[in-house]
Amino acid sequence: MLRKLLAILSAFLCFGLANQGHAEDGYDLWLRYQPLESAAKARAAPWVTAMIASTSSPTIGVALEELQRGVQGMLGAPLARREGVQDGAVLLTSAGSPLLQGLDLPFAKLGEEGYLIRSATVQGKRVTVIAGNRDIGVLYGVFRFLKLLQTGQPIDNLDLTDAPKLKVRVLNHWDNLNRHVERGYSGLSIWDWQKLPGFRDPRYTDYARANASIGINGTVLTNVNANADILRPDYLQKVKALAEIFRPYGIKVYLTARFSAPIELGKLKTADPLDPEVRAWWKAKIDEIYTVIPDFGGLLVKANSEGQPGPADYKRSHAEGANMLADALAPHHGIVMWRAFVYAAENAEDRHKQAYSEFQPLDGRFRDNVLVQVKNGAIDFQPREPFHPLFGAMPKTPLMMEFQITKEYLGFATHLAYLGTMWEEALQADTFRPNKGSTVARVIETPVDADAATGMAGVANIGSDRNWSGSQFDQANWYAFGRFAWDPGAKAEPIARDWAAMTWGNDPAVIAPVVRMMLGSREAVVDYMTPLGLTHQMATGHHYGPGPWVSDLARPEWNPVYYAKAAPDGIGFDRTAKGSDALSQYAPALVKSWGSLKSVPDELLLWFHHVPWDYRMKSGRTLWDALVIHYDTGIDKVRGMQADWAGLRGKVDAQRWAEVRDFLAIQLAEAIWWRDASIAWFQSISKRPLPEGHKPPAHDLDYYKAITMPYAPGWGE
Amino acid sequence: MLRKLLAILSAFLCFGLANQGHAEDGYDLWLRYQPLESAAKARAAPWVTAMIASTSSPTIGVALEELQRGVQGMLGAPLARREGVQDGAVLLTSAGSPLLQGLDLPFAKLGEEGYLIRSATVQGKRVTVIAGNRDIGVLYGVFRFLKLLQTGQPIDNLDLTDAPKLKVRVLNHWDNLNRHVERGYSGLSIWDWQKLPGFRDPRYTDYARANASIGINGTVLTNVNANADILRPDYLQKVKALAEIFRPYGIKVYLTARFSAPIELGKLKTADPLDPEVRAWWKAKIDEIYTVIPDFGGLLVKANSEGQPGPADYKRSHAEGANMLADALAPHHGIVMWRAFVYAAENAEDRHKQAYSEFQPLDGRFRDNVLVQVKNGAIDFQPREPFHPLFGAMPKTPLMMEFQITKEYLGFATHLAYLGTMWEEALQADTFRPNKGSTVARVIETPVDADAATGMAGVANIGSDRNWSGSQFDQANWYAFGRFAWDPGAKAEPIARDWAAMTWGNDPAVIAPVVRMMLGSREAVVDYMTPLGLTHQMATGHHYGPGPWVSDLARPEWNPVYYAKAAPDGIGFDRTAKGSDALSQYAPALVKSWGSLKSVPDELLLWFHHVPWDYRMKSGRTLWDALVIHYDTGIDKVRGMQADWAGLRGKVDAQRWAEVRDFLAIQLAEAIWWRDASIAWFQSISKRPLPEGHKPPAHDLDYYKAITMPYAPGWGE
Repeated sequence: MLRKLLAILSAFLCFGLANQGHAEDGYDLWLRYQPLESAAKARAAPWVTAMIASTSSPTIGVALEELQRGVQGMLGAPLARREGVQDGAVLLTSAGSPLLQGLDLPFAKLGEEGYLIRSATVQGKRVTVIAGNRDIGVLYGVFRFLKLLQTGQPIDNLDLTDAPKLKVRVLNHWDNLNRHVERGYSGLSIWDWQKLPGFRDPRYTDYARANASIGINGTVLTNVNANADILRPDYLQKVKALAEIFRPYGIKVYLTARFSAPIELGKLKTADPLDPEVRAWWKAKIDEIYTVIPDFGGLLVKANSEGQPGPADYKRSHAEGANMLADALAPHHGIVMWRAFVYAAENAEDRHKQAYSEFQPLDGRFRDNVLVQVKNGAIDFQPREPFHPLFGAMPKTPLMMEFQITKEYLGFATHLAYLGTMWEEALQADTFRPNKGSTVARVIETPVDADAATGMAGVANIGSDRNWSGSQFDQANWYAFGRFAWDPGAKAEPIARDWAAMTWGNDPAVIAPVVRMMLGSREAVVDYMTPLGLTHQMATGHHYGPGPWVSDLARPEWNPVYYAKAAPDGIGFDRTAKGSDALSQYAPALVKSWGSLKSVPDELLLWFHHVPWDYRMKSGRTLWDALVIHYDTGIDKVRGMQADWAGLRGKVDAQRWAEVRDFLAIQLAEAIWWRDASIAWFQSISKRPLPEGHKPPAHDLDYYKAITMPYAPGWGE
Repeated sequence: MLRKLLAILSAFLCFGLANQGHAEDGYDLWLRYQPLESAAKARAAPWVTAMIASTSSPTIGVALEELQRGVQGMLGAPLARREGVQDGAVLLTSAGSPLLQGLDLPFAKLGEEGYLIRSATVQGKRVTVIAGNRDIGVLYGVFRFLKLLQTGQPIDNLDLTDAPKLKVRVLNHWDNLNRHVERGYSGLSIWDWQKLPGFRDPRYTDYARANASIGINGTVLTNVNANADILRPDYLQKVKALAEIFRPYGIKVYLTARFSAPIELGKLKTADPLDPEVRAWWKAKIDEIYTVIPDFGGLLVKANSEGQPGPADYKRSHAEGANMLADALAPHHGIVMWRAFVYAAENAEDRHKQAYSEFQPLDGRFRDNVLVQVKNGAIDFQPREPFHPLFGAMPKTPLMMEFQITKEYLGFATHLAYLGTMWEEALQADTFRPNKGSTVARVIETPVDADAATGMAGVANIGSDRNWSGSQFDQANWYAFGRFAWDPGAKAEPIARDWAAMTWGNDPAVIAPVVRMMLGSREAVVDYMTPLGLTHQMATGHHYGPGPWVSDLARPEWNPVYYAKAAPDGIGFDRTAKGSDALSQYAPALVKSWGSLKSVPDELLLWFHHVPWDYRMKSGRTLWDALVIHYDTGIDKVRGMQADWAGLRGKVDAQRWAEVRDFLAIQLAEAIWWRDASIAWFQSISKRPLPEGHKPPAHDLDYYKAITMPYAPGWGE
């Protein structure tokens, strides 16, 4: 009784203290480890009486720390490490441990990074075994075990195994050495190069914890628009400090390679990948990197795209460029990730077609340790794109997926848009190559040969903001990326559910509305920005807000008018055989279904077809009316999110609640801005009245054209 | 007994929890309100039984909130607001309150912002009265009352009054609209313009609390290298949101005015301050600002300096430029702060002399609501400069002091340098104008006429970093600035003591070493960077690290060699009548003492004199030997700080302790770098051996010259 009283009292006092000093602000991400409600606590307590580790290593060390932290937070009592097995212990161990004798555990299917969690009897005691073939599996298992507690699941009779379906699961930080983050909406780069290596910010460790908790095993520290200086010896010492912090968490560091580095750093006259001096320079530089960082992951390259140097400057192919680096990395087991996001400075071909045209003929020409990194769509991280036609079209080449976690084209940090649904859509798309059922997920998770790499990259939304991602809900996109990289066949809904429970509280009355908001959010953005297959209608440079009228940029494919092709006769980009024929890059089954107005889905209509304003949609409405209705539907969906969120007042902590409320208000105002500006512009071309019940834009077109945002974040240097 | 047990236990548990979730990271600044030790708690508790406010206003509201927060934190019990007077109540009230009848309280000497704290009997109850003529005085009094608790002083028999000696106490944020902070070493600007006005980050409120706690009553939001866009209507709405947050805390917002804004925003052909259209444009713009922000503070201008536009572009004087803005601001009671930091693009005159030459003749020509803002020294925020000769030389013009809180020239955030001693030195300097004892402090705090403004500006070191200032110890400089702005006659030592107690813990075993470190720290920097009156030896652009050899910059006064004038015959800048004669800008008494090698203090020797390498110092050493010894002394002082800090392990919280330890290690390495590079350079000229026992630099001169830091923070755009 006294003990209980003490517990209650101290919980009360602590709550007071914690509330006073530090409101929840999102820093803890989905690893909040808040106290469980008392029934759940009572159920779990007998199963976490102690922790035991049969081996020791830095990774096991951090696994024990995390377990201790999680159990302390959720159960309110410290978790001690013991040597001897006892009832209720959590046993961290690996294949071959004598403690596991007699247990028939499926280590064979765990691979290098998988884990098993098994409620078992060891030395006559009931314990929970968390084990893997390597220590990293144990750490992943600990995070899974903690998630069970966080999401209120029983832990008394466990029999779980899991293993990642992809080998390389990396974040791409588009971070410059001056800490500016290209397309970053969450403050500065978290890499404080000025203070590295002398100061190791504790935040680096929390970054590693968060990533390990979702299975991310690599991070590319620097921008794909690369700076050769990251390869300077003084910078490599800074990279080394980060690598040391990340290593126990199973996270390798990678860097971006500026293709012209042999000229800029090495003072050579050329960067021709077939030049012996160039090859020797890269070999020496890569050897130097491995001297400093023995488990360095490899290099990511953006070449001959948007002004970056590359092998084409010397009339060499992407394969020749990539293979040069791959040859230098191979002895160290490093890899090259070579981006397929290219469009030539002078090429009249539909931008949609260029990457395929350039890369598909190179199928089979890349070294084993090269992954060609392909964006999910052929244009550029738009709110909706059909899947990239390269998926399925290069069967002899390892292709990795590149998703953009940061919301360059989806309203930056203040618009709530859960990208899980978008990524599920892309991954579940059927390439029909070689046959029906060959989804994008299957393509990327099936190695092209036994040793071939597989992978997924996500352009990070992480920055120095206290909440890491610029908004509370954008944390969900970091979380979801990790989950999809672990399992490309995963579904957006359960991921959202897990995230909501861990981030906002494991209460069905909280989870249901949060998940509802998330699942509808991306389609809301599509509706109020670029419905019916429209794309790239964003303002110039920063890509924030509407700019559908922009037509004066140097290259045609930078202009929104290039994509919408709005004209008196209709709207949309004809990519059928009568038009650019980009459609022909897809499998015949898709050419057939997407090529016909009858069978193309509404959401890709204007992506593939130029359609008269009065075209009758399946709904019976004219295209023009349907377009207007979509914009308004987007606004309605934002209002729906606001209503859901209003209902959570008092059910979640006040500070984060208020932040989301304010962001939703910004989103609503800007959804209306998008709708009004877009309608004002397209109506000036369609010359058609708005459907009944739909209000005209609040201002005239000139008003919207005059809006400028010269200091929007995430662009410039 | 049970109660005591409970308290101990819950304190223990809370400590555990607090440690787990959120280690101390510096966010709370000097307002940590940590639990008092139990004897102090017991002494204080009877005197804070309730709080009473006789009036209500937003300012009284935040005063009550702060009192509640502080007492809750320090005493561990909530403090309720009551209506009726009770024993032990804290009574917030103002002059004229019926509750104060019969008490003879000295409201007359409090002015508009002062306060009194008096232990008194009101309605037969023993209460603590905190009162002012205006509500802002009450808020300042509450912070003072809380400081008494934080620093362990008795509160049972109080009789205090205090009032600021300067009217305008402002921070200058050199923050650009893209959130880059010029000379910022603590992340991005805390003004998130992109999300304003829709999102009001709780951090803005904490910023206001911190400033109010030290009496700062204004903030200039934007960079002196100004951007006219801040005056756009959409940006004024963002400024308004900040003004609303700051208003209850007695903080006015100010903006920087780009002198050419009438051209850039108003599309006029000129910005000539005597042009009627220009004057009308500014009047309309300023009227517009006051429509949006009725208590707008005014404008800060950097004109005709380092490329900024200004009245000289139209052959008008600084007074004509400033007065134009002053006339438009006067009806709204706004002020102009006009910087005297000028040096012309083409002027062969010693840079030291230029501001005086340009401004002194304008004495008496500025409007009443203009403050001429003068840096503490004539060059540019160096580790040591003699006071600026304008102080005392413009008796008919209000001069305000400009200090630089951010450490542009003192090692950025990683070098520990408490600037309180530097500011005390500047403020206590005797101008001898009009007579002995006319210190700089006296000059700036004495109004030139009854209504004239007085003021002090500090270039902020505040950014988005979690610890606000880029390092734990740099918070002390923000704190000290507020204290000196409140009272220019204050002393650095007690300010350091207060800050140390509030920030690190009110334990003599902590305070003593922390204060010792602080008081010696600035002189350490002088020693290892620029001893004996050397100045501006920093690397180009970013000003981090040594660059004494730099001689190739376009303007002579940008080059370190211009300042040191090291040559085979000796070193130092002759500013006597035989040299540039800058010395003649000072009062005759100073010309006499500083002009003579016999009486000039060592620390200004090379500032005013060119001296042979073998010159015998008062110590009997040669100048060369003394110089080398100073560099090594600086390093020794850093080692001394390290030793002091090592002794605090376990006496302060672990995370902040480790951060300071790491920063000190960086500082030591860089002090050695400064020493070695400087000695390598000067020895190449002096051709003299090092004094016995002093080691040669670790590398040759070329090594130090080759070090580049292209991505050092705080410069560029």
